[in-house]
Amino acid sequence: MKVAILGYGVVGSGTYEILDKAGYTVGKILDIRPHPELGDVLTTDFDDILNDKEIGVVAEAIGGLEPAHSFLVKAIKAGKHVVSSNKHLICTYYDELHSLAREMGVTVRFSASAGGGIPWLHNLCRATRCDKITRVSGIMNGTTNFIIDAMITDGADFSDVLAMAQSLGYAEADPSADIDGLDTARKTAISSSIAFNTEISEDDVSVFGLRNIKKCDIEYIKGKLNKSIRYVGTGVMSDGAVSTFVEPLIIGEDSLFAGVKKNNNMISLVGENVGELSFFGQGAGKYPTGVSVAQDVIDIVNGDFALITPGQSINVDNGAVTKQYYVRTKADVPSDLIDSLTKIGDDNFIITKEISVLGMHKLSKEIIQKDGVSFFAGIER
Amino acid sequence: MKVAILGYGVVGSGTYEILDKAGYTVGKILDIRPHPELGDVLTTDFDDILNDKEIGVVAEAIGGLEPAHSFLVKAIKAGKHVVSSNKHLICTYYDELHSLAREMGVTVRFSASAGGGIPWLHNLCRATRCDKITRVSGIMNGTTNFIIDAMITDGADFSDVLAMAQSLGYAEADPSADIDGLDTARKTAISSSIAFNTEISEDDVSVFGLRNIKKCDIEYIKGKLNKSIRYVGTGVMSDGAVSTFVEPLIIGEDSLFAGVKKNNNMISLVGENVGELSFFGQGAGKYPTGVSVAQDVIDIVNGDFALITPGQSINVDNGAVTKQYYVRTKADVPSDLIDSLTKIGDDNFIITKEISVLGMHKLSKEIIQKDGVSFFAGIER
Repeated sequence: MKVAILGYGVVGSGTYEILDKAGYTVGKILDIRPHPELGDVLTTDFDDILNDKEIGVVAEAIGGLEPAHSFLVKAIKAGKHVVSSNKHLICTYYDELHSLAREMGVTVRFSASAGGGIPWLHNLCRATRCDKITRVSGIMNGTTNFIIDAMITDGADFSDVLAMAQSLGYAEADPSADIDGLDTARKTAISSSIAFNTEISEDDVSVFGLRNIKKCDIEYIKGKLNKSIRYVGTGVMSDGAVSTFVEPLIIGEDSLFAGVKKNNNMISLVGENVGELSFFGQGAGKYPTGVSVAQDVIDIVNGDFALITPGQSINVDNGAVTKQYYVRTKADVPSDLIDSLTKIGDDNFIITKEISVLGMHKLSKEIIQKDGVSFFAGIER
Repeated sequence: MKVAILGYGVVGSGTYEILDKAGYTVGKILDIRPHPELGDVLTTDFDDILNDKEIGVVAEAIGGLEPAHSFLVKAIKAGKHVVSSNKHLICTYYDELHSLAREMGVTVRFSASAGGGIPWLHNLCRATRCDKITRVSGIMNGTTNFIIDAMITDGADFSDVLAMAQSLGYAEADPSADIDGLDTARKTAISSSIAFNTEISEDDVSVFGLRNIKKCDIEYIKGKLNKSIRYVGTGVMSDGAVSTFVEPLIIGEDSLFAGVKKNNNMISLVGENVGELSFFGQGAGKYPTGVSVAQDVIDIVNGDFALITPGQSINVDNGAVTKQYYVRTKADVPSDLIDSLTKIGDDNFIITKEISVLGMHKLSKEIIQKDGVSFFAGIER
């Protein structure tokens, strides 16, 4: 079985090099840019791939929704297995792609769409074969972890670290998908869909961004609370209800997540049988992400065509998980919610009583209207 | 394809419950003890399993070398796939079982033999498909991690913590395989064999035990060096040479390994493409280990019969890796090897200059002859 790769950018070229070196045949690569080194393997016409009977698996590394989505739909309809590293696409078309693949008797794999080089989704899928997953939770975005780690380690300001991350290529010119949480929300949705055998969209995930974090928050969390902080996406199943949320999370200084430095990722699952399993590694990058795409391709070439069968859709209500929150704001917070309050200058540093994720995210909208740079973080039990 | 389980102890019964609940058919369970709840599934005669044509995979959870080894050899010769959770057996008969399995066209799986419930060996095997592994390294023994963590956290003495670990069921009545390193050495040998595509025996692994660690070591490492410590097995491939060793390892207080508490395990690989990947979880226990055995069985039932093909045997010389060591001893240490020395009472607390693993383990034998309770630990770079 030969392989086609769509897109010869960072991930596509990494995937090609890895598969080629490992002895797998990449028959065609689709890219509109000239790559003379690829010779006849390069094509600018997707039909060359669609009509090539020897190509049994199409790996997409274009990014964005279109034309990537149309290409994958056409490939599945032509009876080809598909692999994608594209979280936006997988998150948006999860059900469509799986339904179509089931109809056509092919498989859809997307290991690189959450966790980058970490074999996270592979192991999560595998875990569901003989375990009930009750929780997925992780540092899934390298940019925000790089920012938090540098703020903690160097006492730097958010904006300075963001600029440094951009200059190092860790953060995009427009960093909003990272620092406002969309990237982590999509990875949380995909992970929760697999873990809880349902289909969860990015809109189901409640998000507190990291954008408003300030030096004074780090100083308070580290100095007054003796804690650390990470930016974490979480999906929890309890009593048949699913909660999915992305929040800055205040954690113990000696916790596993606190050992995750720089732009690394770590994602955990809790299974009723296996207990907690955590997976650490590079969440992005040419070769790490290329490995994840290549592993999906190799599984398929080796004859593993198992396909996820999403069960009933479950509503996410975020009402079942409760915890305490840290809030730094100039605005007033309802006094019955306050467990402790320290005033430094104009800022209220508040630790709330236990409140549901749903309740806190609703309340945050009112607080943000009064003080737009308020910062919210969950506190790990 | 039906499954047989050999041994209905902790791991065997965990495996049975997990497979049964997940819808796989366990046709026979071999145990010499009565288990009326198992009805016809229980047998005391291995031939019942051997002659049952419906049984395609035999999972061994007896422990020890015999009769487990003979049973697995007979099963393979009868054309059945085999799974084992038995590190002693796998480490001892690695080549024999693989050669025989290759001849018979069946597979051998042993995910639970290193890492317990952590899908470590599965992911390590998988990583070798498209990466060159240069290092495996990990906290692979829950008992010694429990002891170290309690000594650090509670300031307790080694012997008190060991007694507590025994009363909690974490440590055996005879704890020597744990605290003298044989358990970790076997897991390191198995992991290194897979990582470097060779066959490494437990005798190839140089071992410093944990038995001699004292409260004063923890106080020195924590108080004077501002470091933490874990008990770590390591295999390194560099310039065609393999080093494999088990040592107490002095690490940064904010390193990933330092976040591994209680009886948990964490094992890492470094691949040229993927970088560092780390896997955390329960290294033992009925259900975690049962999950690993069950996952091997499920792979086989699903038709994944891939078998490791060990390459050329590589000599382990431990000469290629150098580092600094911590030595606490009443004996004299050659002065040209000493980087720093602090004398407290009769004890010399020494940080050595860089020395090879080979050199340090040789020297340790002379030092131990002069002071039998000397303690040695590598220092992470």
